[in-house]
Amino acid sequence: MNAEIISVGDELLIGQVVNTNQSFIAQQLNSVGIDVRLMTTVGDHEHAILAAFEAAFNRHEVVAVTGGLGPTHDDITRAAVCKFFKTELVINEEALENVNQRFLRRGYAVTKVNEEQALVPRSCTVIQNAHGTAPGYFFERDHKYFIVMPGVPSEMKAMMENFVIPYFQKNASGLVIRHRTLKTTGIPESYLADRIGNTENLFTPNSRTTLAYLPSFLGVRLRITAKATSVQLAEETIKEVEQKIREKAGKYIYAADEEELEHVLGKLFTERKLKIAIAESCTGGLIADRMSDVSGSSKYFERSITSYSNDSKVAELGVPSSLIEQFGAVSREVAEAMAFGIRTKAGVDIGISTTGVAGPTGGTPEKPVGLVWIGYSDKHETFALKFNFVNERRQIKERASQAALELLRRKLLKVEL
Amino acid sequence: MNAEIISVGDELLIGQVVNTNQSFIAQQLNSVGIDVRLMTTVGDHEHAILAAFEAAFNRHEVVAVTGGLGPTHDDITRAAVCKFFKTELVINEEALENVNQRFLRRGYAVTKVNEEQALVPRSCTVIQNAHGTAPGYFFERDHKYFIVMPGVPSEMKAMMENFVIPYFQKNASGLVIRHRTLKTTGIPESYLADRIGNTENLFTPNSRTTLAYLPSFLGVRLRITAKATSVQLAEETIKEVEQKIREKAGKYIYAADEEELEHVLGKLFTERKLKIAIAESCTGGLIADRMSDVSGSSKYFERSITSYSNDSKVAELGVPSSLIEQFGAVSREVAEAMAFGIRTKAGVDIGISTTGVAGPTGGTPEKPVGLVWIGYSDKHETFALKFNFVNERRQIKERASQAALELLRRKLLKVEL
Repeated sequence: MNAEIISVGDELLIGQVVNTNQSFIAQQLNSVGIDVRLMTTVGDHEHAILAAFEAAFNRHEVVAVTGGLGPTHDDITRAAVCKFFKTELVINEEALENVNQRFLRRGYAVTKVNEEQALVPRSCTVIQNAHGTAPGYFFERDHKYFIVMPGVPSEMKAMMENFVIPYFQKNASGLVIRHRTLKTTGIPESYLADRIGNTENLFTPNSRTTLAYLPSFLGVRLRITAKATSVQLAEETIKEVEQKIREKAGKYIYAADEEELEHVLGKLFTERKLKIAIAESCTGGLIADRMSDVSGSSKYFERSITSYSNDSKVAELGVPSSLIEQFGAVSREVAEAMAFGIRTKAGVDIGISTTGVAGPTGGTPEKPVGLVWIGYSDKHETFALKFNFVNERRQIKERASQAALELLRRKLLKVEL
Repeated sequence: MNAEIISVGDELLIGQVVNTNQSFIAQQLNSVGIDVRLMTTVGDHEHAILAAFEAAFNRHEVVAVTGGLGPTHDDITRAAVCKFFKTELVINEEALENVNQRFLRRGYAVTKVNEEQALVPRSCTVIQNAHGTAPGYFFERDHKYFIVMPGVPSEMKAMMENFVIPYFQKNASGLVIRHRTLKTTGIPESYLADRIGNTENLFTPNSRTTLAYLPSFLGVRLRITAKATSVQLAEETIKEVEQKIREKAGKYIYAADEEELEHVLGKLFTERKLKIAIAESCTGGLIADRMSDVSGSSKYFERSITSYSNDSKVAELGVPSSLIEQFGAVSREVAEAMAFGIRTKAGVDIGISTTGVAGPTGGTPEKPVGLVWIGYSDKHETFALKFNFVNERRQIKERASQAALELLRRKLLKVEL
């Protein structure tokens, strides 16, 4: 089956909100073999919404709509749906109960505006909302499907996971699609392409297999896609292609699919029963934030110190103030002293540190914006590596955090730096 | 003028990549009075790309396309553009020089694949790429505009800022559009709507002014939009509406437009010459990360400690271990001791702390996932507030960081908590 995703909302058209719903819905539909062919975004205007409904339901078998179901005057999707399916609004008792319960729990009184959230089109199956008040709608017409959900991501996600996907798992048929993404860092796209060579070396041309290069500022991802008549066949194809890619570029691949560097490190630290502590300056807490995003990280992530001031570098990490005076806070010597200091103070196996110029101000000819030293210390060695990152403050922080975590990965796996 | 944005890429249709380009381009076009009416996303397939080009260029005056200009086999937008405009590829000397320079600087040799990046459609104006190798194209046909840019956000952004927007600033005409967004936190959407009341109380109906409610899990944003024949008129309208909204719901408004809580705090700390230190447990470094996103934050953000282990709470923050034994690490008493400890240790004016259960594991009936204590300490008082957040680990971390920063804002401005 094929699908179109329609997003409704002026906030999307003026660029105020980044549309994360589209990608989530696409991933989910994909997982049950539904191919998304088109994504469309329209504003909160009846004629535009109706035109999008009409075109989408003509050309695709599944149409998933989000947005415009809220309680305020600018939410007009529900009225447009009624017009499109020539139906009227009726109260849904279960949805009304949900509205009442939600307000009760939060200690608010229910207003008339809220009660109206329980009005739904008569001729649909109602999708109850586990995270909010506006219900969703599911229409089936001649083996075509029209799904309407709220635009609030958590509400839409619960409806996809609890209703839409289970429905299609039971009822869909046709080709299965599987993806596998290998994440690389530290190598430009064209060099990676040179290493991997022509796709004919990886899989038979004209087969239902593809390889895509997806660059980002944290590294290039390689996405293998296989379509087949069974999950097993699709997965076998992917496994073969992955194997060939790993032979050519394995060193640069740090993770696959949804896994981030912090998850890879979490497994390594847990397996090896190692503990880490972090001393951050220019990354300002971002490395600790990423580390602590992993459930169970309290087992190996002992503590971190963001020593933003020079005083705190001296007092918290034992960096000799003479080092800061002689070499400056952004220097190999200070990075090394920070990594050594946090490791010994916390009594852990590994210490890591960052010190750099995050910008946009504070750069000099010798120490430009984007210069970052990353320090590493374990019981055998203490050293620091120099990096030059470009772009804005946030990107410099993110690239530096990525480089620090990749340095840890390579040290733990004994891959050359 | 009106516009359509077309994004090309299979990675978007399978939901692997969130489309941030759309929203950036929409914002930029909006700022020069160009109204985005539709956003469309298609895959890397020639017929789909050509169909999207055809439909968009028929119905809109400006078409902005991103994606599919890279050096690898799956990048086919350039060929589709040539077909659409019935033109051929020629080498662009300036683009070739750029390719050579970029590779030289990074110490790589230029490959044939890279040189081909300098091939451009004959009949366009070339937009040079300041951040990468693939140039962009600008076509003007009978006062309609067709713009093609790479999908890598930093490359596209530089082209928009340095070429596309300056072009339209010089050449566009018609109505000016201005937006203003007021950001609230700590009040549900329907309650906010009740407070603010009917939009007729804010502006004349049928005027070219609108108000939209945009909920997110960090709070509800209110977006005022005004269209007028001059910037001055649009701004006056917005000012009047904002004033009326502030009279009704001012206490909940913490910032406007792009400003985040950390920027508001940055100004307050700087103006008042106050310094802050942070002790985080469940937020794991996120508050420090947000604080340090503000350029110049090293002036007031003295240090932070992520005391993930109980040992580090005792050793780094002076939390008595008897308190942890008696009340547990997630408790009012420990939150207060952490805030007090970091403030006195760092010798700053204000200390703030978090301790909670970020989940998904570790919850108990008395201390469920999402329970967070936020501690505050200055020279007059030390206290902690209890919060119950819902949803996933990351969202709990983000909501807790938002609540901690909002607590700081209200204390500094003497707004009731």
